[in-house]
Amino acid sequence: MTDAPMTAPGPSTATAGEILSRHLTAQAGAFLRALPQAVGEVGSRPGAVVLPSAGTSDLLRAVRRIGGALHTFAASFEEAWAEESRRELRWLLNLLAQEPGYLRRSARLLAALDSLSGSEPDGPGMLAGHAGAPKARALLDRQLTLARTRAHSAVLQDLRSARLHALADRMTLLVGETPLLAAGGELAPQAAGALDALAAGARALPLDRASTPYGGDGLRRLGSVPAPARAQAPAVRGLLDADAALAADDAPWHRVRILVKRARYALEVCARPAAGLDGLDRVLGRHQEASDAAVTAATAARTPRITPATAYVLGVVHADQRLEVEAARYAFGRQWPELSLGLDAWGAPPAPRMA
Amino acid sequence: MTDAPMTAPGPSTATAGEILSRHLTAQAGAFLRALPQAVGEVGSRPGAVVLPSAGTSDLLRAVRRIGGALHTFAASFEEAWAEESRRELRWLLNLLAQEPGYLRRSARLLAALDSLSGSEPDGPGMLAGHAGAPKARALLDRQLTLARTRAHSAVLQDLRSARLHALADRMTLLVGETPLLAAGGELAPQAAGALDALAAGARALPLDRASTPYGGDGLRRLGSVPAPARAQAPAVRGLLDADAALAADDAPWHRVRILVKRARYALEVCARPAAGLDGLDRVLGRHQEASDAAVTAATAARTPRITPATAYVLGVVHADQRLEVEAARYAFGRQWPELSLGLDAWGAPPAPRMA
Repeated sequence: MTDAPMTAPGPSTATAGEILSRHLTAQAGAFLRALPQAVGEVGSRPGAVVLPSAGTSDLLRAVRRIGGALHTFAASFEEAWAEESRRELRWLLNLLAQEPGYLRRSARLLAALDSLSGSEPDGPGMLAGHAGAPKARALLDRQLTLARTRAHSAVLQDLRSARLHALADRMTLLVGETPLLAAGGELAPQAAGALDALAAGARALPLDRASTPYGGDGLRRLGSVPAPARAQAPAVRGLLDADAALAADDAPWHRVRILVKRARYALEVCARPAAGLDGLDRVLGRHQEASDAAVTAATAARTPRITPATAYVLGVVHADQRLEVEAARYAFGRQWPELSLGLDAWGAPPAPRMA
Repeated sequence: MTDAPMTAPGPSTATAGEILSRHLTAQAGAFLRALPQAVGEVGSRPGAVVLPSAGTSDLLRAVRRIGGALHTFAASFEEAWAEESRRELRWLLNLLAQEPGYLRRSARLLAALDSLSGSEPDGPGMLAGHAGAPKARALLDRQLTLARTRAHSAVLQDLRSARLHALADRMTLLVGETPLLAAGGELAPQAAGALDALAAGARALPLDRASTPYGGDGLRRLGSVPAPARAQAPAVRGLLDADAALAADDAPWHRVRILVKRARYALEVCARPAAGLDGLDRVLGRHQEASDAAVTAATAARTPRITPATAYVLGVVHADQRLEVEAARYAFGRQWPELSLGLDAWGAPPAPRMA
């Protein structure tokens, strides 16, 4: 599964509508091919660890691209139809992404714990042989397995729902005829809009701080917590404060991750290379997963009746994952400036017009 | 208190013996002036937090320089006398350094905890408002205050000892006549020996790993633990393993810190500038203090009957300090290569000969 554009570069005479149609037809086709496979996969493994499975991956891939195109090139589509489609695609995305997400999080956290507590003479970690490590490992494994099992049941149920059938029907229609507006906009300015949104999102990040390694942005110097987020921290004030602070600090980075994906998919539609964006996407994916894993470690540490040794190990794991968050931000800060110049210079592609 | 050489550059006709004599006379004079002040300071504050006090700092400064000169220019001194003097100076250094060390460690750990648990809206930490933070803070404060009080009593007792009086007599003699060998060596090759030892020590460090930020050297990828260190881990196997691993990983860096100091002092004797070495000294001082603070956090987490929330916070603090260790190594790896070239080019100073 590569990330190369699926649409071949259209002949220069192709209109914006033709290009969009061809792209969505291809992606909707991929959706419909992957769907039964994904449904079969989910049904056939009641909890078995064989993810990421090909069908689900392909399905997620198509869902993301169709949703991205509907967002970026919104001016070319019937508004109500595009919005409804995007909402249904988001629903499926969230549904499908959960189980593989928990599996990746489990792999990430257990690998971190094993690395931190490894006691091989040629490369032990700071928790080498710590008595709390096996207990913390078992606790994380148990909690994530439970979360994954629940997500699995939810998928299993929703994959038989009328809602999914309606979405499949919607995709079938898309293969035949894309509901394009006759007076829809041009591709290039809309794609440029996605790049602009990304640039604006990146400008809002504290990149000057992130560009200094070991600046403490993941652990010590979180950004401002907006008033609404703070107001949400009532009863168990202490714990929720930290959660609110971390969530508020990570949020702009999570948003930029979405903007990177949208920019990638927009350039794919225009059959333009965007080599750097997939690297950025990976870095921000790592950021998101480390951020989520840190929350899981902090949550596990609040389990009643755990031993102090277990809690201590979870504190180390939490900090370790926040450090990964910080490292990902640093990596982003290193890659972004040059890439940003490249995107600025991207200019307008040969501008096809609506037929 | 500046780190500029205390000996003015000797006229080019000065012999190695004259230069060493002048340097040691000046430092021994500083020792004798600072000693009563330091003794008075220690006696007058039964636990009061007024460190670092001027007298103790001046005394430590002179002790380090005399010890360094006796080591680096060993060929110029009577062997037995120099070795005995160094042993006694080391004893005083360890004695005097303990109390200020605990005070700095306390300040470092409590500041780290306050930063990690700070809940100001404009820059909260990952433990913002965490329920375990005040308890962990009180525990660390209590344990370090106890350690400091013990160190204080030990100093108070030993500053009245015959051993200190004998050392003071030894320093008084040094002001009058330095026991130099008639056939003692030249200064330049001996100073170059100190630089060579530093270069060799730095070569043994895993600088290729440390030069990548967020490489995990402080937390996850500790170096090999030598067999002897591992053999020392008997009864409480789990906990001692981690301690042994961390100690073995930090040891070569601590050794290089000593070598940096010796090289600094050797260049001071030769009245040569060594601007970069004091920066390196500071970085490795930070490395040492973070490493010691990490041990204190890990030790505090083993206190019986603490709550899981306290242990969790101590785990985060432990990881935070190991991250500081990693950051210091990275900073060293950035400064060393260029500085190393400068030291290589240092060449031989105008070579004074023994009279």
